[in-house]
Amino acid sequence: MNPTLTTLLNHRSIRKFTAEKLTPTEVDTLVSAAQHAATSTFSQQYSIISVTDPQKLAVLGEITGHPWLEGAGHYFLMVADQYRNAQLTPKNATTTANLHSTDKLLAGIFDAAIATEAMVTAGESLGLGSTVMGSILNDTLRVISLFNLPELTFPVLGLAVGHPAEKPALKPRLPQELVHFDNDYQPITANDPILSGYNHLITTYYHERGSHQRDETFTHHIVTEMSRDPKQRAEILVALAQQGFTLNSPIQD
Amino acid sequence: MNPTLTTLLNHRSIRKFTAEKLTPTEVDTLVSAAQHAATSTFSQQYSIISVTDPQKLAVLGEITGHPWLEGAGHYFLMVADQYRNAQLTPKNATTTANLHSTDKLLAGIFDAAIATEAMVTAGESLGLGSTVMGSILNDTLRVISLFNLPELTFPVLGLAVGHPAEKPALKPRLPQELVHFDNDYQPITANDPILSGYNHLITTYYHERGSHQRDETFTHHIVTEMSRDPKQRAEILVALAQQGFTLNSPIQD
Repeated sequence: MNPTLTTLLNHRSIRKFTAEKLTPTEVDTLVSAAQHAATSTFSQQYSIISVTDPQKLAVLGEITGHPWLEGAGHYFLMVADQYRNAQLTPKNATTTANLHSTDKLLAGIFDAAIATEAMVTAGESLGLGSTVMGSILNDTLRVISLFNLPELTFPVLGLAVGHPAEKPALKPRLPQELVHFDNDYQPITANDPILSGYNHLITTYYHERGSHQRDETFTHHIVTEMSRDPKQRAEILVALAQQGFTLNSPIQD
Repeated sequence: MNPTLTTLLNHRSIRKFTAEKLTPTEVDTLVSAAQHAATSTFSQQYSIISVTDPQKLAVLGEITGHPWLEGAGHYFLMVADQYRNAQLTPKNATTTANLHSTDKLLAGIFDAAIATEAMVTAGESLGLGSTVMGSILNDTLRVISLFNLPELTFPVLGLAVGHPAEKPALKPRLPQELVHFDNDYQPITANDPILSGYNHLITTYYHERGSHQRDETFTHHIVTEMSRDPKQRAEILVALAQQGFTLNSPIQD
């Protein structure tokens, strides 16, 4: 197996880091990896904010519920960005409709997420570990305000990177049969025997890891996730509207 | 530079492939790389459809306007997927609100996009080239119907992979100063001198590539993109609603 595949197939989230910060060269390398990833129509519709201000890191620690991020070797905020393109574009009905469209929102989100994964992989190739953090969306409006994100930008993911101070076991993924299909979507049923086998595997994983002493399963994990108070994240839509993403068809016939 | 960084920093989209198909092992390896990437709350909210049916590939070639995809060594459709999790979750007001929420839509999109980039990188490490294709959203409803995508799923990206039959020049990316900021978003202005320098670079790139004989710039490229008829992609919102993503706050106070 080549070193890149070894890196990709051994990804785990790292949440404990040594005190060593990333060097400026390492930060540049990760950003460069992000920049060389594919973007939608080569429009490069994302921006990256390095968060080094301890006060801002503390706020992010609070928003995400993961204060350990303050001790990471570096923290990146990944932003879907149509603001830059808006600055380059003369305003008329067509360009305005496009810039504010769901289509261009998604393009920015795709670009930012793809860039994030390039940074994760680049970091791991350098011996760094990371955690991709969707939890910045626990308080999207506060993140927007904290980093002065203008109209037509949206915070997508956080990325904590650093020198690993832990090596967690590799968490078993869903069996390929449940995720990868040929030519047609294949609906799962709750009593799928392959799913049952995977649930057993997850139980064993948590027992061996010494956490979740109760019999955690993937199914139980999903039920827990879907049983959270949905009010917490309802603000996401408010934030999208505030940032100018109307989520309405831009032009109605 | 380590081989993974070399791979990441040399990414270019490949649109011409030899006739050689991916082996089943190569397909499995790419899917495995996708599966080992990070997912939001480890909920693995994506699915992957291998498209091998020539009729379906022809329809995708038509939808995307890129019929060359029919000659790729393999084609993957990346799907944001809350349907699987919905099947594992007992229905009540809370779980329903969550499953249909913007939050979980975004989580599925992040997972699918991140998985896509893992596959791109895995493929390149094996000498394969690829193009990530957002153009499947040119006719989202038709893609949904073509692959029988159920409620709470959404097609995110296509991925054409194969053995490269071209080696395009590396396209210069935006200067880091315009993309990467410290602690605060830095708005660009249309007459930014760094942007002007980049526009010159893009002009040179196209001249040397022998295409776009007119003086293409990044600014001109963006203006062209934003001047397309926005009606073409207005259907995306219709498709999101059809798939059960309400894009309304799930619970109002």
